[in-house]
Amino acid sequence: MKKIAVDAMGGDNAPKAIIDGVNRAIETFSDIEIQLYGDEAKIKTYLKDSDRISIIHTDEKINSDDEPAKAIRRKKQASMILAAKAVKDGEADAVLSAGNTGALLAAGLFIVGRIKGVDRPGLMSTLPTTDGAGYDMLDLGANAENTADHLHQYAILGSFYAKNVRGIKKPRIGLLNNGTESTKGDPLRKATYELLSNDNTLHFIGNVEARDLMAGVADVVVADGFTGNAVLKSIEGTAIGIMKQLKSAVNDGGFKSKLGALFLKDSLYQLKDSLDYSSAGGAVLLGLKAPVVKSHGSSDEKAIFYTIKQIRSMLETDVVNQLVETFSKEERADD
Amino acid sequence: MKKIAVDAMGGDNAPKAIIDGVNRAIETFSDIEIQLYGDEAKIKTYLKDSDRISIIHTDEKINSDDEPAKAIRRKKQASMILAAKAVKDGEADAVLSAGNTGALLAAGLFIVGRIKGVDRPGLMSTLPTTDGAGYDMLDLGANAENTADHLHQYAILGSFYAKNVRGIKKPRIGLLNNGTESTKGDPLRKATYELLSNDNTLHFIGNVEARDLMAGVADVVVADGFTGNAVLKSIEGTAIGIMKQLKSAVNDGGFKSKLGALFLKDSLYQLKDSLDYSSAGGAVLLGLKAPVVKSHGSSDEKAIFYTIKQIRSMLETDVVNQLVETFSKEERADD
Repeated sequence: MKKIAVDAMGGDNAPKAIIDGVNRAIETFSDIEIQLYGDEAKIKTYLKDSDRISIIHTDEKINSDDEPAKAIRRKKQASMILAAKAVKDGEADAVLSAGNTGALLAAGLFIVGRIKGVDRPGLMSTLPTTDGAGYDMLDLGANAENTADHLHQYAILGSFYAKNVRGIKKPRIGLLNNGTESTKGDPLRKATYELLSNDNTLHFIGNVEARDLMAGVADVVVADGFTGNAVLKSIEGTAIGIMKQLKSAVNDGGFKSKLGALFLKDSLYQLKDSLDYSSAGGAVLLGLKAPVVKSHGSSDEKAIFYTIKQIRSMLETDVVNQLVETFSKEERADD
Repeated sequence: MKKIAVDAMGGDNAPKAIIDGVNRAIETFSDIEIQLYGDEAKIKTYLKDSDRISIIHTDEKINSDDEPAKAIRRKKQASMILAAKAVKDGEADAVLSAGNTGALLAAGLFIVGRIKGVDRPGLMSTLPTTDGAGYDMLDLGANAENTADHLHQYAILGSFYAKNVRGIKKPRIGLLNNGTESTKGDPLRKATYELLSNDNTLHFIGNVEARDLMAGVADVVVADGFTGNAVLKSIEGTAIGIMKQLKSAVNDGGFKSKLGALFLKDSLYQLKDSLDYSSAGGAVLLGLKAPVVKSHGSSDEKAIFYTIKQIRSMLETDVVNQLVETFSKEERADD
């Protein structure tokens, strides 16, 4: 039985969206148990009865505008913190929260803890490609600065994830750079290129450019946290902006355009779905001793369901213990 | 009379698109002269007669796959190089090319030359916002690495450009960062934030995130060349990807969708236009002694026309000499 600790109070639509997603997951997967951390009365309003769900009541919660480091120090009884502690204490195998990202990163690092040999866990998401296959990118901003060694570790972490959770036999690893030629980039990129080229456990395909990500140029894209964060937010902002433009172009276009949009409705929903990509799950803080997964703040029932599905895959394939083993070998090799 | 040296042989559609754009510009603006560098016979095929156009024949040209540094060293008679030399020798006031970006940057730096006090000229483009106003971002990748002083210079350069060429009285300067709070970012961003805050000639509005660029959060966005390049390419790649998705969603949607798209045609073209944004002109290597402007490799007649219009504005407002004066004051203040 896989035990997942869920922060019932995190995110814009908590606790309803969280509980709805949990209800669906419990019905769908017979091999999971859910521990819900949060306000018991509120949780019970939405919860369907199941002997595989338990509630651990707490009044405290971390808000989206709380300063992360302060929050995890002072709000020791917050739903997110108790969920992370359950993993630390061996009562749960993984944590899910749609709450404050910074606080969850801090809880992951300081409560769940790093895998030995991983210096700076990286935030990873599966992002959409036009062919629907998607790619994993990390670090998306857990760190503001990274070294070439960190980037090398991200390549290993991302490769294991893509193999195990997404079922890609030989994930193509690309280094995000300002050109595809092997000589491109700043010293950080050049040093990383060297490390990735020399690691024959990885299927390194060289430098990739942000322009080609959506076309599916790689299965795993390695970036420093600052650039990864900027690229992720550029993709999001552009997608939102274009959908807004499309909507206003339709509205400004008069009756004919509105009629057209009506006919196109299904296709436009399909487009929206393909960009949403919440079916790939949440953002994983990869490099920790257990899956710590952040679902988007605006997560609905569907997003929570798919994040639980993703966590279940991570537990099923035991990707974290594979990583522990891999990095302990690396450590020994470095000695 | 404003004299513009044009590389007639650069870009995917050269020389036809270049000459078509020049023809239109000469008809529209009575205060410009164009010097066309390239294959005289080919140029003449498309050129309309005008006493304000001269042709300087050369057989040599730089190709898109030429290695920039090597190209400007070895192809001394290339159309792009001769155009840059005309500016250096005072025969022209500005250069336009749709050719090899790296070679044009090198020609700008080594032939046209930097403004005294500007350490690392930055590549700047006006990019689209949903409200149509646009924003200027630099550096978009002229440099792989930058210091806080460079970023401070980009803020000054971009502010002058937005004021003079785009007519924005008090351009809002934003620093691209991984969060909006003043304490965010790596040491480079923190040091830049400090410099921008303390420069009261600038209207610095603080940190901005890539997610908000298309919504028009700032008039000028300052970034290091590596991040700026990644953000630009993410925006381009996402826009291309979504338009492709939209097209295939329509095609897969059957008769009803195709009928809808037919009704929506004008609105979809309007959307495409608003994203294209070539009416804002080309990418300027800002910080040089004269306007050196790169039009997109795929430029058509319209893009070339608008780039000439942009160069004319830069010359009319004498933005380069204003910058020369500003940076000479900065230099004195630093002594």
